[in-house]
Amino acid sequence: MTQSPVISIDAMGGDHGPSVVVPAVARALAELPDNVCFLLHGDEAVLAPEIAQHPAAAGRVTIRHAERVIGMDEKPAQALRRGKGSSMWNAVEAVREGEASCAVSAGNTGALMAISRLILRMIADLDRPALVAPVPTPRGVTTFLDVGANIDCDAERLIEFAIMGEAYHRAAHGKAKPAIGLLNVGAEEMKGHDEVREADRILRAGGFDLNYKGFVEGDDVTRGSVDVIVTDGFTGNVALKAMEGVARFITGELRSALTSGGLATAGALLARGALTKFRDRMNPPPAAPFLGLNGLVLKVHGGANARDFAQALKVAADLAQSDFAAEIERNMRKLPAALAEAAPEAGAGMSGEAADVERTK
Amino acid sequence: MTQSPVISIDAMGGDHGPSVVVPAVARALAELPDNVCFLLHGDEAVLAPEIAQHPAAAGRVTIRHAERVIGMDEKPAQALRRGKGSSMWNAVEAVREGEASCAVSAGNTGALMAISRLILRMIADLDRPALVAPVPTPRGVTTFLDVGANIDCDAERLIEFAIMGEAYHRAAHGKAKPAIGLLNVGAEEMKGHDEVREADRILRAGGFDLNYKGFVEGDDVTRGSVDVIVTDGFTGNVALKAMEGVARFITGELRSALTSGGLATAGALLARGALTKFRDRMNPPPAAPFLGLNGLVLKVHGGANARDFAQALKVAADLAQSDFAAEIERNMRKLPAALAEAAPEAGAGMSGEAADVERTK
Repeated sequence: MTQSPVISIDAMGGDHGPSVVVPAVARALAELPDNVCFLLHGDEAVLAPEIAQHPAAAGRVTIRHAERVIGMDEKPAQALRRGKGSSMWNAVEAVREGEASCAVSAGNTGALMAISRLILRMIADLDRPALVAPVPTPRGVTTFLDVGANIDCDAERLIEFAIMGEAYHRAAHGKAKPAIGLLNVGAEEMKGHDEVREADRILRAGGFDLNYKGFVEGDDVTRGSVDVIVTDGFTGNVALKAMEGVARFITGELRSALTSGGLATAGALLARGALTKFRDRMNPPPAAPFLGLNGLVLKVHGGANARDFAQALKVAADLAQSDFAAEIERNMRKLPAALAEAAPEAGAGMSGEAADVERTK
Repeated sequence: MTQSPVISIDAMGGDHGPSVVVPAVARALAELPDNVCFLLHGDEAVLAPEIAQHPAAAGRVTIRHAERVIGMDEKPAQALRRGKGSSMWNAVEAVREGEASCAVSAGNTGALMAISRLILRMIADLDRPALVAPVPTPRGVTTFLDVGANIDCDAERLIEFAIMGEAYHRAAHGKAKPAIGLLNVGAEEMKGHDEVREADRILRAGGFDLNYKGFVEGDDVTRGSVDVIVTDGFTGNVALKAMEGVARFITGELRSALTSGGLATAGALLARGALTKFRDRMNPPPAAPFLGLNGLVLKVHGGANARDFAQALKVAADLAQSDFAAEIERNMRKLPAALAEAAPEAGAGMSGEAADVERTK
């Protein structure tokens, strides 16, 4: 996969479809190495004339006609029944067929997840792909997962997230040994529920090729104290949405504070450049992967503009040229032994120090 | 309790001790009705001369000497062993003895919780008091609980939080029928784990005197769509800290954006008033109750200033004069019947629509 990566693109997906995807591909043609090629799925009558305007596309862009587009509000079950032959379906299928190394879509998230799972199947015994949220921090980006796909997670599941999130962070952000933290509560008497404590014990026991740092707390997600933060899909989804809510509330309050009258408004005008930089800084990166599939799928934010989508294509190319899948497999293979080894220790731990009488239940 | 409420105060607690507590009591003497009285626990040699400077204190403030102060970094177990006779211990004990209607402390949270639980005991079959976080919203305050005390919560526990949070919100914020939401994830295929779905079903089935609105999501905490948001202590703690992290990150980024150079800095100076108002708006209310005890205990933020502490004393007076405890007891008494009624329905629900094949596990 390190030679001539092909990126398979759902050219009709997202709020803006080809009007964003084609300019994004044009940017990517200029910015990415010559060996990176693009396979565009969608309405040929629309795509062909637009792509023809970009001379750099010759030999690097292939258009594959798709009859159908999956709507942004279609239910996943409906997308599964009626999605065959759509631009999204075909974009994912090209990965299964080995024609492309990564599929990219700004379409309907639920549909993309259902279709990806059906076509590519899950690795290991995961039920659903983990959803990753890239969260901005003062130092860069935290890879935060799972943010909503897997509601109930045992220790094994949490460790799988750590393995996959670590490999993704390295591939997407070029950090050799990303630091991993396991999300937990902070008060001293309570060190979390059984699942996180068991996952922590197994990760600590080693055996994996991971830079595991132990427990982290909710505010570490935006602090950048570690690179990858792992949690179950319930907690991750709630935390992510709560964080989005705060960001929205603060920027709303700030806007009304700065437009509240004469001096403040004048001040806001003068500070406009700084405030714009601030807003850009707060925007989360536009692309996030589905982790745990036999193949790479990258979800781009539905409202992404051409710059965002081009950025996602760069991530796709980086992933396609990385050892991502092999690294995950290598650590996944160590999991059964690590779990088996931890099993007897679990009983000992529970009757000893871990069974804190102060703990609830 | 509606006549002459007495507020029992740990006058030595918090980062600032009497230097904040005494001015706060002076403010409260001026702002609260004449029938509200204060019982101050702490070093008489320090407190008596300071209180003597406030003529309004005569007849309304009593000083009760306490030999010991519990340190801000003492472990809860240590505080339990050695805390007897401390200002915090005595402040709580005055509530049990019926001398006061509410205890207020800015001291060590873990110690206050342990001492309160030991002295006052829990109501119902709760193991630990629920921790409430008052979260600012554009419309007022969301009463968010549990934010860390009870890590594992079944449906019954979540319903108890709803009952207690509702009564607290009414007493503290004067809203007749606070709207209650149960925190859950939002994606369509997954409607949360068994515990939240069961709690939702029981709350919907009615039988309680509650204004229950159903599921809400993480961003509702700062949106103000409901007044009370209920979740387990793990999710609540992570969400609250994640939200605090975002607020800290944003204000930090904003500060550096606005001090990044000439025009921006000038702008920031002009907008200073608006930005200060904004910062005040973002500060969470300074006092939060421990819910589920046989008696009222209010925890004030350790770094609270005199204005914050006086605000907490007002909340304590409101609580002391409310029907808070009776309202909770009334709804708690309906709980066993509601749980028993829900039990057969649970089986039916699981084999029917609720057992969504798309759900994980």
